[in-house]
Amino acid sequence: MTRRPGKSYSLSELVARFGGEVAGSATTQISQIAPLSSARAGDITFVTSARYQRELEKTRASAVIVGPDLSGATSIPRIVSGNPYAYYAKVCALLNPERVHAAGVHALASVSAAARLGEKVSVGPGAVIDDEAEIGAGVRIGAGSYVGRGTRIGAGTVLHANVTFYDGCIIGERGIVHSGAVIGADGFGMAMDEGRWLKIPQIGRVVIGADVEIGANTTIDRGALEDTVIEDGVKMDNQVQIGHNCRIGAHTAIAGCVGIAGSALIGRYCRIGGAAMIHGHIEIVDNVEISGGTLVPKSIDKPGKYTAVFPMTGHREWTVNASLVRQLKDLRDRVRALEDDSEGSER
Amino acid sequence: MTRRPGKSYSLSELVARFGGEVAGSATTQISQIAPLSSARAGDITFVTSARYQRELEKTRASAVIVGPDLSGATSIPRIVSGNPYAYYAKVCALLNPERVHAAGVHALASVSAAARLGEKVSVGPGAVIDDEAEIGAGVRIGAGSYVGRGTRIGAGTVLHANVTFYDGCIIGERGIVHSGAVIGADGFGMAMDEGRWLKIPQIGRVVIGADVEIGANTTIDRGALEDTVIEDGVKMDNQVQIGHNCRIGAHTAIAGCVGIAGSALIGRYCRIGGAAMIHGHIEIVDNVEISGGTLVPKSIDKPGKYTAVFPMTGHREWTVNASLVRQLKDLRDRVRALEDDSEGSER
Amino acid sequence: MTRRPGKSYSLSELVARFGGEVAGSATTQISQIAPLSSARAGDITFVTSARYQRELEKTRASAVIVGPDLSGATSIPRIVSGNPYAYYAKVCALLNPERVHAAGVHALASVSAAARLGEKVSVGPGAVIDDEAEIGAGVRIGAGSYVGRGTRIGAGTVLHANVTFYDGCIIGERGIVHSGAVIGADGFGMAMDEGRWLKIPQIGRVVIGADVEIGANTTIDRGALEDTVIEDGVKMDNQVQIGHNCRIGAHTAIAGCVGIAGSALIGRYCRIGGAAMIHGHIEIVDNVEISGGTLVPKSIDKPGKYTAVFPMTGHREWTVNASLVRQLKDLRDRVRALEDDSEGSER
Repeated sequence: MTRRPGKSYSLSELVARFGGEVAGSATTQISQIAPLSSARAGDITFVTSARYQRELEKTRASAVIVGPDLSGATSIPRIVSGNPYAYYAKVCALLNPERVHAAGVHALASVSAAARLGEKVSVGPGAVIDDEAEIGAGVRIGAGSYVGRGTRIGAGTVLHANVTFYDGCIIGERGIVHSGAVIGADGFGMAMDEGRWLKIPQIGRVVIGADVEIGANTTIDRGALEDTVIEDGVKMDNQVQIGHNCRIGAHTAIAGCVGIAGSALIGRYCRIGGAAMIHGHIEIVDNVEISGGTLVPKSIDKPGKYTAVFPMTGHREWTVNASLVRQLKDLRDRVRALEDDSEGSER
Repeated sequence: MTRRPGKSYSLSELVARFGGEVAGSATTQISQIAPLSSARAGDITFVTSARYQRELEKTRASAVIVGPDLSGATSIPRIVSGNPYAYYAKVCALLNPERVHAAGVHALASVSAAARLGEKVSVGPGAVIDDEAEIGAGVRIGAGSYVGRGTRIGAGTVLHANVTFYDGCIIGERGIVHSGAVIGADGFGMAMDEGRWLKIPQIGRVVIGADVEIGANTTIDRGALEDTVIEDGVKMDNQVQIGHNCRIGAHTAIAGCVGIAGSALIGRYCRIGGAAMIHGHIEIVDNVEISGGTLVPKSIDKPGKYTAVFPMTGHREWTVNASLVRQLKDLRDRVRALEDDSEGSER
Repeated sequence: MTRRPGKSYSLSELVARFGGEVAGSATTQISQIAPLSSARAGDITFVTSARYQRELEKTRASAVIVGPDLSGATSIPRIVSGNPYAYYAKVCALLNPERVHAAGVHALASVSAAARLGEKVSVGPGAVIDDEAEIGAGVRIGAGSYVGRGTRIGAGTVLHANVTFYDGCIIGERGIVHSGAVIGADGFGMAMDEGRWLKIPQIGRVVIGADVEIGANTTIDRGALEDTVIEDGVKMDNQVQIGHNCRIGAHTAIAGCVGIAGSALIGRYCRIGGAAMIHGHIEIVDNVEISGGTLVPKSIDKPGKYTAVFPMTGHREWTVNASLVRQLKDLRDRVRALEDDSEGSER
């Protein structure tokens, strides 16, 4: 953890900002947030589950954020909140303000005369902003990032270093795009023509809403004819791949290494576990949870949790059992034959 | 879709360029191409399967590209082609010409005096071309891309922004390399030596043929001693990983998130579905199709389609059944015992 | 293979440097290393297994590196070593010295006045070194790479082109970081708060030891509160994803496309096969081997090899059998019923 000498706050100041109630000394000063086990004097910590009650008893933190159920489980000064995890997020952000990047265009950046920059935009060294791009107020374009022709970056959005936006794409306000992300590369479209693949031009765009976070080295392809759409509040981890023409519903969270093939339509408030793979041309309704590593080959029309992964075992044991999957039909047929025999002999 | 005011063409002009036959008014003018459902006046659309006949009846397009089987299914002006999908690709490219990048080296690019550039090369801001690199005529090197020492880029090839070619690699003519792709990084080779990994220098190259497209953030490692080879016409989607010493046969198409381990030899005209994983040191013949998500642990010596993925189910149902895979041998043995009993009682 | 005219060495010179014993003419000169099948005069080759004895008999190499068991299997001049594969690595490195990059900061690089650079640092065009970064002696920062504020790069480490280190991270000495790698992006942490995801600031760092190699487009996230730690000698291939708060033990090797979710603790000397996926918040002891493609959903407390992948089959055969996995409980219950019947009839 980076411990820069930061500002400190009393519990009563925190509650004034973020709600909740103080139990114990409201004047307790805290200047950093830390996990139960490593917190020390001056830190606030947090508990999100009764499972951690024993660790709570041993913490050396000066204060703790707890839910109402655990407020009585400790005597150290505490903030009682209905959502301790969200409270932690807010306190952590307060205590650890983001680095401020000075506004202005670095001498080694290249900004087209035909681009439009809002107020207080920061453009890092090596960044490139192409013709007709529109950069909203307070945007930061990190070192080495590229913003294509006509692309629009909403106010307050941050592109970290080495991000690429192709021509003609859009991202809304307050977005965060991590390094190595590529937005708007061509979708994977081609037609076989006399023994050769013919490229199908990808003339759609990528249109991303507000408050979207995109992980490092994630790729989102532009649409073939229509647009690829990422709605407001979507959160994507690293190395996610979104194919052309997909639509990802608002507030859906996609963990690392997930692949979503072209023209898949994902609902709102879905949660897609790491390394899940979703076929193209399918539709998933709102509030679906996909377990990590699961392959989704068809549409899902009911909310709920879906899974298709196997618990690993020791290598030898696995090899013996897994090969029998290929004999399941034979095994089923043999059981049927036994059942027929058994019924026959009972008659 | 980006609708720039473009040129318009009559159906007879299209047929003169691309073949096929016109049915209905050959003077119908079209200026854009769009899907059946969203096409409007001035657009041409296309139908690739009789499945879409109902949508065809409702389209508001001014014209349609159809196969001979569906020519009678509509009365709107149409182009009849034996391969409507390829025809769509050609018309789409005509109506949506690529952006022209002015030739020349940007003031913020770095081109070695010892590099050789062909005619009409465009080098974007922040791009770097190292010593002895050879850049063919009409090549575009996107902003922030790096071309290593001695690397050769064939005529007409496009490197989008932030592409990396290591030293000593080759790509042929008319290639397209998307942002974030890394060509020629070291293969994963090391030897355990007294408790420490010893790096094995990777002195092979990556040698890529003509008409190859490489997706965003795809990585192709250089060979250990020999070269990694990508033959003509190979198409790769995003986030594909090709290990050292692989050979990918001509016109093979590799969908997103596929991993191919070192020294795998893949045939021509193969199609590898998204997120498939192919072991190293195996050989796959021509015309093999691998289903998305399938793991290929051994060589394939016959053309055809191969699969090893499970249809996901509801989480609880899955958990109950999947855990039984680990008891398959036991189950099989119990069925055997019952069969022995049954035979014994019949004697 | 790149065959630059290189220096040549006699077998006795090699043995003087790297140990082992010469059999046959010790004055044999070699200038390159090559595989058994393609080696020619002037090359040395190597054999790591008796499986290759037939190829050994046919090689045209001038010399060979062999283990004691195969020393008698050939009459060509040879070096006998207890570890021919490591010996190959050493000879290959000697014969193929790495390109030397001139020290100095390129005119198109941007180095903060508040950064500290050691001796003989090479900073390529377009590279950016931010405030308070510390760059050790002999470090190479490739073209277009970004080193964040306060980040420390140990002596002798190489960042290839287009690498990104976020603020406040650390990598030790003699590291190699390949292009497109992103170190220190935010971990995937957020709290649901009244229907919206609230970002949890990621204030930990990434702390990487000495002698670590990181593959192209690999991503390692910074910790949420504590640090993500990569210990000495870890080797990672391309497109690996390491979540926040992970700890990877020393000398563990991680093949391409592996994903490791947040807060996983991996032991020392583990080997993780390509495309394996490891759940978060689990612990794996030292010396564990995970087969490629395997999903690890829980902790592993014993060394050994673990697997959960299925051998692919022809598509139709697979489809028939795989769907029966969903009926395993039913099948098991039917076998039980038959067993009960059978026992009943025997009584």
